[in-house]
Amino acid sequence: MTKIDRTYLDWNATAPLLPAAREACVAALDMVGNPSSVHGEGRALRMLVEAARRDVAALVNTAPAHVIFTSGATEAANLVLTPHYRMGRTLLTIGHLYVSEIEHPAVREGGRFAREDVTTIPVTRAGIVDLDALDARLQAHDKAKGLPMVAVMLANNETGIVQPVKAAAEIVRRHGGLLVVDAVQAVGRMPVDIEAFDADFLIVSSHKLGGPKGVGALVSRGEVLMPVPLIRGGGQEKGHRSGTENPAALAGFAAAARAAVADLAERNARIAGLRDALEAGMRTATNDVIIHGADGERVANTSFFSLPGLKSETGQIAFDLEGIALSAGSACSSGKVGQSHVLTAMGLDAALGGLRISLGPGSTEADVERFLAAFSRVVSRRRAA
Amino acid sequence: MTKIDRTYLDWNATAPLLPAAREACVAALDMVGNPSSVHGEGRALRMLVEAARRDVAALVNTAPAHVIFTSGATEAANLVLTPHYRMGRTLLTIGHLYVSEIEHPAVREGGRFAREDVTTIPVTRAGIVDLDALDARLQAHDKAKGLPMVAVMLANNETGIVQPVKAAAEIVRRHGGLLVVDAVQAVGRMPVDIEAFDADFLIVSSHKLGGPKGVGALVSRGEVLMPVPLIRGGGQEKGHRSGTENPAALAGFAAAARAAVADLAERNARIAGLRDALEAGMRTATNDVIIHGADGERVANTSFFSLPGLKSETGQIAFDLEGIALSAGSACSSGKVGQSHVLTAMGLDAALGGLRISLGPGSTEADVERFLAAFSRVVSRRRAA
Repeated sequence: MTKIDRTYLDWNATAPLLPAAREACVAALDMVGNPSSVHGEGRALRMLVEAARRDVAALVNTAPAHVIFTSGATEAANLVLTPHYRMGRTLLTIGHLYVSEIEHPAVREGGRFAREDVTTIPVTRAGIVDLDALDARLQAHDKAKGLPMVAVMLANNETGIVQPVKAAAEIVRRHGGLLVVDAVQAVGRMPVDIEAFDADFLIVSSHKLGGPKGVGALVSRGEVLMPVPLIRGGGQEKGHRSGTENPAALAGFAAAARAAVADLAERNARIAGLRDALEAGMRTATNDVIIHGADGERVANTSFFSLPGLKSETGQIAFDLEGIALSAGSACSSGKVGQSHVLTAMGLDAALGGLRISLGPGSTEADVERFLAAFSRVVSRRRAA
Repeated sequence: MTKIDRTYLDWNATAPLLPAAREACVAALDMVGNPSSVHGEGRALRMLVEAARRDVAALVNTAPAHVIFTSGATEAANLVLTPHYRMGRTLLTIGHLYVSEIEHPAVREGGRFAREDVTTIPVTRAGIVDLDALDARLQAHDKAKGLPMVAVMLANNETGIVQPVKAAAEIVRRHGGLLVVDAVQAVGRMPVDIEAFDADFLIVSSHKLGGPKGVGALVSRGEVLMPVPLIRGGGQEKGHRSGTENPAALAGFAAAARAAVADLAERNARIAGLRDALEAGMRTATNDVIIHGADGERVANTSFFSLPGLKSETGQIAFDLEGIALSAGSACSSGKVGQSHVLTAMGLDAALGGLRISLGPGSTEADVERFLAAFSRVVSRRRAA
């Protein structure tokens, strides 16, 4: 691999580690001790953990006490998506979970809800959660079984399309439900404010921001209504999540969180410029490329396209051989290239295939040029086939 | 902290990162990509993850396919300790969990079992699980509710006392139950072989071995009978544990696992020599020091002692001020210094207080000398008080 000059256009799968995050990680790796130990070594690490909590809280405009660190966004989703809540000492039951059809598998799987207690909410052809359908489903919700919980992501991981979270929150409030927002692909790519969105819980991840893998957070609106713990043990994270804290990962996450909020507008304007150039170049190269969600609001870094006649798997391999890393959608299920559930949800034929380009702060004009050169070759080979 | 010369004697809370583990971590941090991506970057990380699986499997003498990576031992405990198992597609119910009274809180909390479905098994005054009591409890187990599951740790985290796991396994087999062994404090400190112990599952942790924090594993005897996943989502770890894999942590864990099995006997003979010198020195300094479990089989690195008249908290702070990091038991619950549940289980007055010294491959004779000098001062101050 190392001898080939590569172009990395898969920042939504994972972002390269930012230099500041790398530095923070390595410095914390060199600190000896357990943050829960009372000796000097432990206390120094405790300070580091709590400083990280402040930085991650600032990322989504909340108080540090509202941040529960987890091993990643998937764990955070499994923590929050549960029928079992506590309001102080009182147990509270969530009767049913409603998830948008385009949620990440970590949310769509429904966490600790039984399969029969999870309903999907369709999206429109524009790739946006259907708010009328959400309203209708909540209208039909049987409150005798418990409160409804709704999960709507902020920015879709495949298309980058921004979802109407604030409007969804109004509907959820009207029906007395709870709103969980997967903000994994949104933080660092658009302003994220748990208060402004009126969400009860947000899910965030470090490695999509340029922090290390293996750490994320569940952020709550308050501290009163909290899920029954998923991982029990030594009582870390105020009992919400047991297990030895991971200072190196937290220090790196914090550095990435600080970088994500700094110069957000300028950074994303530059990235949007690259993405627009890339999409204009694709349209110039071939008139049958379909760019999903291009007419609506998207985060600046993502472009999800289909080329009729080019399957996702074939396309992904073709670009890989050209030295370009891009993906066919979300990177999970161990290298399986499945059909995009997002395209299907948008009413498109998933067999059409989709390829995702996702950029980041390290992306350059040279990356766009190299992609477009490869794109032309892939397009012409497709025509020859 | 940095200006004071410190002596770290708290390796059971967490071991300083081994240089080889640090190097492996940092190299993997610098690799770009997601191990589940199909492009070249992803495939290189997939190879790293699978190589780590082979190293961790070798640590406990099993096949790589039997290793499920988790975010740590606490998560592994919560994964395995559940009433819900699958044998292929058939659901199987575990009716009751029996845990030894000296298990780590990550196990004692019972994972996904309801509190009323967890029973503790007492230990003898020697700090060893009471096998007759285990047998009697399993005799009385109601099989109509499902199979019994038993959790017995291999080496206790506070005393270092080695538990009769093989003998426990025979009893568990006779009653048709499943045996889970928390080997966190045993790997790297004694030979660990899942086959030899006849255990169904082992729990291991990276950071107790000199690997990074934030990673551990659940190791199974086979692949047929497996717990229902704790964390669902993208289907990583063959569906047993979803969430983006953490290559940096896994590479460091693998390096620590390789180091743990290399020269195990020689390393532990040297560490046992240091521990014996330390205990002889304490006995010379004062004749009322009580060293728990000194007459039985212990792992080489641990010494748990009580000094009548010195509370755990006071002692811990006194040694910290002397520049020595040791602990009052397990490092969890965020800096709380509770009374030792292990001392209580051994029939001792927990108010007596206990202090734990734990050594590691980096410990030296100078560490022992500095501890003994501090010990004499703490002893004489205690007498003066």
